[in-house]
Amino acid sequence: MPGGAAELRINGARLLDSIACLAEIGATPEGGAERLAFTPEDGAGRDLVRSWMEDAGLDIRVDGIGNVIGRRAGEDPDAAPVMLGSHTDTVGNGGRYDGNLGVLAALEVGRTLNDRDIRTRRPLEVAIFSNEEGSRYHPDMLGSLVYAGGLDLESAWALRSPDGTRTLKEELEAIGYLGEAPVPGPVPAAYVELHIEQGPVLEAEGIDFGAVTGVQGILWEEITLSGKANHAGTTPMRFRHDAGVVAADAVLLARQLTREIPGQVATVGRMSFAPGLTNVVPGRAVFTLDIRNPDPDRLRRAEDGFFSGLEAAAGREGVRIERRELARFGPAVFDEKVIALVEEAAAALGGSCRRMPSGAGHDAQMMSRVCPTGMVFVPSVGGVSHNPTEFTRDEDVTAGGNALLTVAFALLKS
Amino acid sequence: MPGGAAELRINGARLLDSIACLAEIGATPEGGAERLAFTPEDGAGRDLVRSWMEDAGLDIRVDGIGNVIGRRAGEDPDAAPVMLGSHTDTVGNGGRYDGNLGVLAALEVGRTLNDRDIRTRRPLEVAIFSNEEGSRYHPDMLGSLVYAGGLDLESAWALRSPDGTRTLKEELEAIGYLGEAPVPGPVPAAYVELHIEQGPVLEAEGIDFGAVTGVQGILWEEITLSGKANHAGTTPMRFRHDAGVVAADAVLLARQLTREIPGQVATVGRMSFAPGLTNVVPGRAVFTLDIRNPDPDRLRRAEDGFFSGLEAAAGREGVRIERRELARFGPAVFDEKVIALVEEAAAALGGSCRRMPSGAGHDAQMMSRVCPTGMVFVPSVGGVSHNPTEFTRDEDVTAGGNALLTVAFALLKS
Repeated sequence: MPGGAAELRINGARLLDSIACLAEIGATPEGGAERLAFTPEDGAGRDLVRSWMEDAGLDIRVDGIGNVIGRRAGEDPDAAPVMLGSHTDTVGNGGRYDGNLGVLAALEVGRTLNDRDIRTRRPLEVAIFSNEEGSRYHPDMLGSLVYAGGLDLESAWALRSPDGTRTLKEELEAIGYLGEAPVPGPVPAAYVELHIEQGPVLEAEGIDFGAVTGVQGILWEEITLSGKANHAGTTPMRFRHDAGVVAADAVLLARQLTREIPGQVATVGRMSFAPGLTNVVPGRAVFTLDIRNPDPDRLRRAEDGFFSGLEAAAGREGVRIERRELARFGPAVFDEKVIALVEEAAAALGGSCRRMPSGAGHDAQMMSRVCPTGMVFVPSVGGVSHNPTEFTRDEDVTAGGNALLTVAFALLKS
Repeated sequence: MPGGAAELRINGARLLDSIACLAEIGATPEGGAERLAFTPEDGAGRDLVRSWMEDAGLDIRVDGIGNVIGRRAGEDPDAAPVMLGSHTDTVGNGGRYDGNLGVLAALEVGRTLNDRDIRTRRPLEVAIFSNEEGSRYHPDMLGSLVYAGGLDLESAWALRSPDGTRTLKEELEAIGYLGEAPVPGPVPAAYVELHIEQGPVLEAEGIDFGAVTGVQGILWEEITLSGKANHAGTTPMRFRHDAGVVAADAVLLARQLTREIPGQVATVGRMSFAPGLTNVVPGRAVFTLDIRNPDPDRLRRAEDGFFSGLEAAAGREGVRIERRELARFGPAVFDEKVIALVEEAAAALGGSCRRMPSGAGHDAQMMSRVCPTGMVFVPSVGGVSHNPTEFTRDEDVTAGGNALLTVAFALLKS
């Protein structure tokens, strides 16, 4: 590692303590946490981390969408900051690592620089982005989206709570996070996020770090098939218009596309037949399709292949198709220089590393729209996430913090 | 038609009036009726038909399971009766023909014999069987099952209402149909039932009558597949244990068996994935299988083929299968002599006729366990049934009544 920082390491025990302490807020019986965006638990989680930022001497600003950013000054007053961060909101009955690791490791980078009394050319910023999970307000990654200028503040403020009784703005105000810092926010020199993989690859391959190359493009559709409900005993097969059979064709078609198209994943996660009776041919089937690919052309090929195959199957059975697009994001491509820095950091730490796309969305995806961006992944035991049993081993948490520190330190000097 | 009965015809207008009048009890806004078994509406429907039976001079008996049987005496005091009948309970939001046609046409046979002052060697019995539909109490065809000795009265009485607050016996008592006639009931010389087809075949082929050869054997299973719920974005395909993919294999496997096995029908009517989220690989899928065949060996072949194929698919995906049998009835085979009488009656009436199995269960299925049995089908417009739009044209209703009369008259003389 260049620049005499070979011995620069975070305080792993302090990072683990912080993770455990934050998990006490909204703690669930199974050992996870639930701090849904803009609820009092989310507010309490932010309060705690903000107090730690203040203790670390960071200058805090809160913007209009509630993003909390703590700044550690640099030596060059004109240099753009290096931003590290993630989110502290969780899904319902979530885990203690998703998001929290990225925020608390960013804070730990600041604390470590403080401990060693290290001045950097660029400022360091530690960001807590609002509503990354999207459990109560769509879209997800809302805070970083607004920060990056992808959604205007008035539109975001007008979003209504799930029960319809309040606006997002009212909820922000209620928890004390309706800030005044402007959005879109100032563009950092770079953005780096540490995150658990939330998938099984690193653990299964025995690899210490993922150097994330970008985030897969994603398409979500809800598909409704309409055939004709009929008596299951008295309706000969040749008279049937069975929506369920076409839905089954769709599931297997999606699976087949993953065999044909490199890097393709496809999932039918929701499925129901109506009227839903044992002895009635299903007249209607409603299901969702989730397809992802890091390559936009391949994703398009998967989409086209799926729907042309579905139309053929529906035509054979005499069933009608309705499509409703639920989400569509093009792939995010991370910065080659930052990716390389992650690989170098892994090597410097004596760890193995592989390049990989992120299967899930992250705040880094939004920040990559405005600045050079990268991510570090550490292994998730069993690939489990969004679940109280989500777990990353202590040594991997510490190693991830050190990789983040190493990458950040290189960027802070640049 | 032999024996000077060539001109013996029912009063079609009276039969249609009776159908319309009974449909007023429990009438639904869309023109159907709802008289769920053992509810006050069911009681009121029985009361009306019983009063008509009394007006027609029939001797009424009610047995322990609430079956109502009206008897028109024959000339030979030792001859077993010819029984005609069906049921007057309906499904939820049902139609006005299913069951009711068979009961009211049987009554119309008695009325016609009265009009013409015709004495027959054998007594005629008109039966209303209890709870044919099974909407509130399982199994369906309960009244005829108990009549035929397939279930003992104490077990039937002990069944509990859907909300669990009452027994079947208490409900029978409440509507005044806990009778004293013994069950199993006396074995008739023959049983004949007129019913709407509830399927599309007769209408589609332009045929007037179905001479029903029996009732398909049936197997209902609920199948639960357990794989592993995982993140749809971060879990590579090779790590998945997707219960939904195996469920889709199952749907298509069932369809494939209908192409390979003569007379086979197969339906997956209910299907749901859990946790049922767009971005989560389904860890669980629950669905039902309904397979039917008039031939017991072919039905067995379908069952074996389905489950061996399902096991192979589940093995490939690493998914576990649990089976729960919901219903299993072997095929019922009707009496060749009665089937031939139906064909002869159709010919005598100048109508076209085809032999066909019944896809749905009927009281005739239970009666066929104890006596020579047959059924007459008339066309269902659009094959629709169990629905307020269930409809059979007036001329087909009348023709069906005449076919029943013709068959019954031959048997009553025999």
